[in-house]
Amino acid sequence: MKKIKIVTIGGGSSYTPELIEGFIVRKDQLPIKEIWLVDIEAGKEKLEIVGNLARRMVKKAGLDWEIHLSLDRKEALKDADFVSTQFRVGLLDARIKDERIPLKYGVLGQETNGAGGVFKALRTIPVILDIVNDMKKLCPNAWLVNFTNPSGMITEAVLNYGNFEKVVGLCNVPINHNFRESKLIGKSPDELIFQYAGLNHHHWHKIYDKSGDDLTALVMEKLFEQKESTMENIEFVPFCEEQIRDLGMLPCSYHQYYYLTDDMVKKEVVNYENHTTRAELVKKLEAELFELYKDPNLKDKPEQLTKRGGTHYSDAACELICSILNNKKTEMVVSTRNHGALTDLPYECVVEVSSIITGIGPRPLTFGKFKPAMRGMVQLMKAMEEVTIEAAVTGSYAKALQAFILNPLIPSGEIAKTILNEMLLAHKDYLPQFTKAIKEIEKNSSL
Amino acid sequence: MKKIKIVTIGGGSSYTPELIEGFIVRKDQLPIKEIWLVDIEAGKEKLEIVGNLARRMVKKAGLDWEIHLSLDRKEALKDADFVSTQFRVGLLDARIKDERIPLKYGVLGQETNGAGGVFKALRTIPVILDIVNDMKKLCPNAWLVNFTNPSGMITEAVLNYGNFEKVVGLCNVPINHNFRESKLIGKSPDELIFQYAGLNHHHWHKIYDKSGDDLTALVMEKLFEQKESTMENIEFVPFCEEQIRDLGMLPCSYHQYYYLTDDMVKKEVVNYENHTTRAELVKKLEAELFELYKDPNLKDKPEQLTKRGGTHYSDAACELICSILNNKKTEMVVSTRNHGALTDLPYECVVEVSSIITGIGPRPLTFGKFKPAMRGMVQLMKAMEEVTIEAAVTGSYAKALQAFILNPLIPSGEIAKTILNEMLLAHKDYLPQFTKAIKEIEKNSSL
Amino acid sequence: MKKIKIVTIGGGSSYTPELIEGFIVRKDQLPIKEIWLVDIEAGKEKLEIVGNLARRMVKKAGLDWEIHLSLDRKEALKDADFVSTQFRVGLLDARIKDERIPLKYGVLGQETNGAGGVFKALRTIPVILDIVNDMKKLCPNAWLVNFTNPSGMITEAVLNYGNFEKVVGLCNVPINHNFRESKLIGKSPDELIFQYAGLNHHHWHKIYDKSGDDLTALVMEKLFEQKESTMENIEFVPFCEEQIRDLGMLPCSYHQYYYLTDDMVKKEVVNYENHTTRAELVKKLEAELFELYKDPNLKDKPEQLTKRGGTHYSDAACELICSILNNKKTEMVVSTRNHGALTDLPYECVVEVSSIITGIGPRPLTFGKFKPAMRGMVQLMKAMEEVTIEAAVTGSYAKALQAFILNPLIPSGEIAKTILNEMLLAHKDYLPQFTKAIKEIEKNSSL
Amino acid sequence: MKKIKIVTIGGGSSYTPELIEGFIVRKDQLPIKEIWLVDIEAGKEKLEIVGNLARRMVKKAGLDWEIHLSLDRKEALKDADFVSTQFRVGLLDARIKDERIPLKYGVLGQETNGAGGVFKALRTIPVILDIVNDMKKLCPNAWLVNFTNPSGMITEAVLNYGNFEKVVGLCNVPINHNFRESKLIGKSPDELIFQYAGLNHHHWHKIYDKSGDDLTALVMEKLFEQKESTMENIEFVPFCEEQIRDLGMLPCSYHQYYYLTDDMVKKEVVNYENHTTRAELVKKLEAELFELYKDPNLKDKPEQLTKRGGTHYSDAACELICSILNNKKTEMVVSTRNHGALTDLPYECVVEVSSIITGIGPRPLTFGKFKPAMRGMVQLMKAMEEVTIEAAVTGSYAKALQAFILNPLIPSGEIAKTILNEMLLAHKDYLPQFTKAIKEIEKNSSL
Repeated sequence: MKKIKIVTIGGGSSYTPELIEGFIVRKDQLPIKEIWLVDIEAGKEKLEIVGNLARRMVKKAGLDWEIHLSLDRKEALKDADFVSTQFRVGLLDARIKDERIPLKYGVLGQETNGAGGVFKALRTIPVILDIVNDMKKLCPNAWLVNFTNPSGMITEAVLNYGNFEKVVGLCNVPINHNFRESKLIGKSPDELIFQYAGLNHHHWHKIYDKSGDDLTALVMEKLFEQKESTMENIEFVPFCEEQIRDLGMLPCSYHQYYYLTDDMVKKEVVNYENHTTRAELVKKLEAELFELYKDPNLKDKPEQLTKRGGTHYSDAACELICSILNNKKTEMVVSTRNHGALTDLPYECVVEVSSIITGIGPRPLTFGKFKPAMRGMVQLMKAMEEVTIEAAVTGSYAKALQAFILNPLIPSGEIAKTILNEMLLAHKDYLPQFTKAIKEIEKNSSL
Repeated sequence: MKKIKIVTIGGGSSYTPELIEGFIVRKDQLPIKEIWLVDIEAGKEKLEIVGNLARRMVKKAGLDWEIHLSLDRKEALKDADFVSTQFRVGLLDARIKDERIPLKYGVLGQETNGAGGVFKALRTIPVILDIVNDMKKLCPNAWLVNFTNPSGMITEAVLNYGNFEKVVGLCNVPINHNFRESKLIGKSPDELIFQYAGLNHHHWHKIYDKSGDDLTALVMEKLFEQKESTMENIEFVPFCEEQIRDLGMLPCSYHQYYYLTDDMVKKEVVNYENHTTRAELVKKLEAELFELYKDPNLKDKPEQLTKRGGTHYSDAACELICSILNNKKTEMVVSTRNHGALTDLPYECVVEVSSIITGIGPRPLTFGKFKPAMRGMVQLMKAMEEVTIEAAVTGSYAKALQAFILNPLIPSGEIAKTILNEMLLAHKDYLPQFTKAIKEIEKNSSL
Repeated sequence: MKKIKIVTIGGGSSYTPELIEGFIVRKDQLPIKEIWLVDIEAGKEKLEIVGNLARRMVKKAGLDWEIHLSLDRKEALKDADFVSTQFRVGLLDARIKDERIPLKYGVLGQETNGAGGVFKALRTIPVILDIVNDMKKLCPNAWLVNFTNPSGMITEAVLNYGNFEKVVGLCNVPINHNFRESKLIGKSPDELIFQYAGLNHHHWHKIYDKSGDDLTALVMEKLFEQKESTMENIEFVPFCEEQIRDLGMLPCSYHQYYYLTDDMVKKEVVNYENHTTRAELVKKLEAELFELYKDPNLKDKPEQLTKRGGTHYSDAACELICSILNNKKTEMVVSTRNHGALTDLPYECVVEVSSIITGIGPRPLTFGKFKPAMRGMVQLMKAMEEVTIEAAVTGSYAKALQAFILNPLIPSGEIAKTILNEMLLAHKDYLPQFTKAIKEIEKNSSL
Repeated sequence: MKKIKIVTIGGGSSYTPELIEGFIVRKDQLPIKEIWLVDIEAGKEKLEIVGNLARRMVKKAGLDWEIHLSLDRKEALKDADFVSTQFRVGLLDARIKDERIPLKYGVLGQETNGAGGVFKALRTIPVILDIVNDMKKLCPNAWLVNFTNPSGMITEAVLNYGNFEKVVGLCNVPINHNFRESKLIGKSPDELIFQYAGLNHHHWHKIYDKSGDDLTALVMEKLFEQKESTMENIEFVPFCEEQIRDLGMLPCSYHQYYYLTDDMVKKEVVNYENHTTRAELVKKLEAELFELYKDPNLKDKPEQLTKRGGTHYSDAACELICSILNNKKTEMVVSTRNHGALTDLPYECVVEVSSIITGIGPRPLTFGKFKPAMRGMVQLMKAMEEVTIEAAVTGSYAKALQAFILNPLIPSGEIAKTILNEMLLAHKDYLPQFTKAIKEIEKNSSL
């Protein structure tokens, strides 16, 4: 079997040890020759730290994989077989702004689908389209495995604007639900059947046992008893039980933001005041992690990484690569083209859905129609995503405002414009496509 | 030509003189034998007052039409040709609650699609389904022309739960837009082509001149210059111009609530404090109108009715009946079954769309697909409507809560439940289907 | 009102007097300045004859319209307001081949949707796309009114390959049905409501009276009693009554070919042997007509034109132009973009459907879903049309063969190839896009 | 693990040894307690013969499975876990009529989707609906695995008229293609990725290798070189290569009937004359097989069964049961509800599509849209199937005639009625729902 080259863009990320661990665990299925960790100048120091840890891990595992650290993306991409992306344009400081600016006005930032998510998309999409352009030239047959949030929008941009078909969007939320909810009923995920449908950070699922019995309602009641969120990074507020029962499907953790907006705002406003927003906590966590990573005696992924929110990351990412490479037909929940899987959403759009991962990429399992209560919400979110992507590609102020007005976490009216303008100004270094709009705002605000 | 019998349920409404005027204007096309004004016991006095005015109007016009006033709905419906419905379950006091209770919590009531609209649907749908049951027995070939709000949801309930096909939902918003916007560019509506698509109180439109030139952008700019709402009953807040231009279609007046939610809340909170909510104003207006109506010398529709919000009512309602009766093929904007007219919405649902009114009822003109910014919103609203109708039919607390959570005017979370519970208690006399849920709330609140 | 210029391509057609008569009848609604009759060199003589008749007709009507006869298409198109197309690539001799070659093998030629229709499309589509290219430069705001068969395919080619939106396809079949079927029940078309849906020469319709009663079944029984075809140009074979009743809609005359294929073959084989195929009859008729047209004393459309198959042609064509020009909102059955009118067919394809003709062109009335027996057939025909258009545009032999195999009038297998090859050779002068494929056939057949 | 009961209706079939062999091969995954072979009185002798062979096979394998032979369906169904159906209403004599009557008129009988298939559906659907009614009472949680042809229509009838969800339709055509086409390129099916889409006996597929390369075109060329049909039971006629290449997908063997109708007719007419139609050959083969089965020394499936057309039958049927029972997630091509897998076909209809077989049944992999040449054909066939099922359920002569007219293998016109009438009379004993129509035919024919 031909040996492969894997490239990780944003290789200096604190997540990288998870990824390396995931590769090591699957060493028998992954004939790796080289792993390239790529980052930008500003991330050089972190890249060195995490890259050296990666080397120690690989060495400890007795493997001959080459770990390359590089600031030259093009050099790295040349002849790659798999490219994973886990970068953050503007680093964590940008995320802090994404979360804090809206909260100043009593509005959720929510770093993936809220105002923060819109801005993360606006900053990231031009960069991913650049990467894809490089890939078309340097490694046109490679698969792009995207972990960068908002994962669904990034994947849709690559497909529908980058015209690059070999892309899969990935997220660790579904796998975390699988693990937690199996445990609640004393099972392992392997003993259950999961059926996921929706969009990234906006999906629902059903659970069955192997004999076909629907356990969704049972798991629901267990979840109501437990008083904690599935995801480390989301503060827990209990769902309205009547509403969730009526859905007939289990919401994902991020639905707290949509189904309990007002309550989440109250929690987050306190975090804003105490400087304990998720972004600020993560920044601290990351600093601590990198301190740990520096230790030349550390040769394993440290336990503390779990708190970072990346649990089961390796399961998801490495299994995906492994399953494509070996046509393993693993069932995973990924962001991929719809093509009928969810008949309530546009044919060509990207959905997050249970899929079989094969040598030709993800083959989504048909889900069909949602009940109206889910249908309406997911259709709104998809439209919001489409408009956001258009805004990112065109740099249109009107489209960005439109996305804010569609976004159910952002109240429409003057307040939407105020937050939008402030965020455009705050992120101007990473929004070259909005130069004209930003100048206009600066001109008006100086009057 | 066979002489016809027209029945108006809620005949004691202050709108009735408009309707009578509309019939009189079209006397040559409407071979009326009898008009039956029907109301309930509580509305008897108003029925007498407005019924006598109607008689004076008909007499002045030199017509031999019989005006019957009745509290016996079944007697009235017997062999009717057209039945119009303009009743209000719980009268204006219910509307005051619909608007004031949410505002207590800083949330818009919005009497058609907001929390108020949801409750109006919950109160009205069981009654309209009763009426339809009577019609199936007493006048199965009659057309039901529904003006009762929320007009789209009521129409959908009649079609999909009442299984009665001969129903049309009507609203005076589109015709008001036609008149106002034509005037802005110095034209009459007859000289222009209008293309409406969406849902009741949630539609958009385009305008062309007869030679096919798109005047939408031109009218948009004229509207931005003007600083007033198209509808008397909606306080003006200017739209975000960039956003509206990006839509490429003209929003309806009710979009102020959706596109400018935060600003509208601020306005309405002041009204709440000053007891000048629309419901409270209307209650005063209605009292004044009925004082006028009592005058035995009044033989015409008084000018003051215009302020009530019913302008062009007669044009819409009477023209609809006239066009069905005579297969006039008038183009009107009505609530009717979708069947492909708006491909983004379910096939069997009710939409509000430009239609040709014929002897077989409304034949909608195909509109096709919306741009994403409109698509997502209208899909959300349709889902909210469907869930509301289900709640009204089943009396399910969970469905009612679900509708609130879907509703973009109601923040989700504890606050939604608080408002829902308070409204259920406040309207309990008109919500027999919710008896069980209301008892539960009463039990819990007494703890 | 601005005076208009109308251009008729294929102006030397025997139909032209109908058209001129139609304009004259509508002189008050049509402020005509110039009518340009355009033809090719080979049609010069006919153009002169019919052009002079047109001049005599206009003169007799006391009108000052200029009648220009031209062989220069570009000169004619300059600044046109309406362009109508009624040309026949290869003249009637090509049609004779279209009908006779398949019949040699016991297969229907059927000059619109059968093998003959496929070849008419292959010859015509490149020419219409040329015309549209000229129009884009010379009269980009003109409407193209296409009568050239196969009218639906030509219209779809103009929209989806010519990227020219202002086009309407027209056919006189629906209007003939309206007249004939109204008469059967003692009514005029004005007293009835017609609902047409399908494709050109492959549509069904329902009929209602003005009070909304469905008369379809009644008309059906009257048709079964009558023993004649609605269209002059189709030999009558009685439908299977049970099948038609089960449809619940009235078929069009051309359905004889699809519902009674075997019986029609038998009739046509006799015509083939007697040299009385429709094409051959028409050729004689045309010769006779042109003899009549030559008469300098003839100043009206001669009665004999009726036999040619163009009855009510003028009603359709001139009314269409008139209704676009004056936003008359006439209800007509035209070939236009689907956009949801028929939900069983692709969104962007062309359908033939009841439409309101306005200043922005045809606005189709939504029809919704067909019953399966019609759905399957119309979906097959649409696919056949799409593949034929692709073949016409690309000159692909495989696509042409594919179209033959899809076509329900052509048996699949060797026979399809045999007929295809023979027709390609016979029409080679008019199929420049197939040069390569034809050479291949010639090479193989000479072996 | 709970031991299971498997019931086979039509247990006296010559296929049964294949099935038993399949169970034996999977003995470690199938904790079988009882196998019930059920047949009708007329099949008693065959049931005994094949049942005794089954017992010998099980005994030889050293298994303690109970083999029950029964003529009492209800007794057998009680508490079953899996029910497989492989019966033939009217036995092989009915199939002989299905094939020979149409051929008398030069029309293909084609025992699954042609005139023969329509009649097989008419005879079988009432019986399968009876079985399903029994299952609802006696084993409501059992899975129904249907092999009876026409497998797709039978499955759709069970789902949409029997309202029984736990049903899967099965056919051995796809697995035969997998084996044969893998071999052509020197691979095993496990090394390849197959993507099937369409309807039973009317599907197409693509083939990829594990690294995602599309091998469809390569396999196509290999197939063109080979001069034989994939299926034993279909006489080989070579496809038109240009057409197949243009499809871009591999047709199934049954497409010979649709793509080469005329050529197949010619072959079959010879068989008709020589009494060598497939049905007649099979009857002989079956007699021979049962002679072999009688041999008390035979303890294995005899090699000769391969010729019967049931190759890989056991792989398909037993693997399906095994995969449902163990949630094995095997990829198989089955007839199951569409729900978006093929977006060109109705949402609720049954399609034959690559699916993952799990504890909740088949989960179809989304395929999306067909190219027009496949789309039109498959849409026609689905409509034909729907109308056939309606005819079977209602006994409507008009629907049966409609199905014939839609069917691309039956020429429309008088000939369709002639064949229909003759077949109704010939099968009258097995068509109780058509009693009225048959009496009418008898009355008319006796005149």
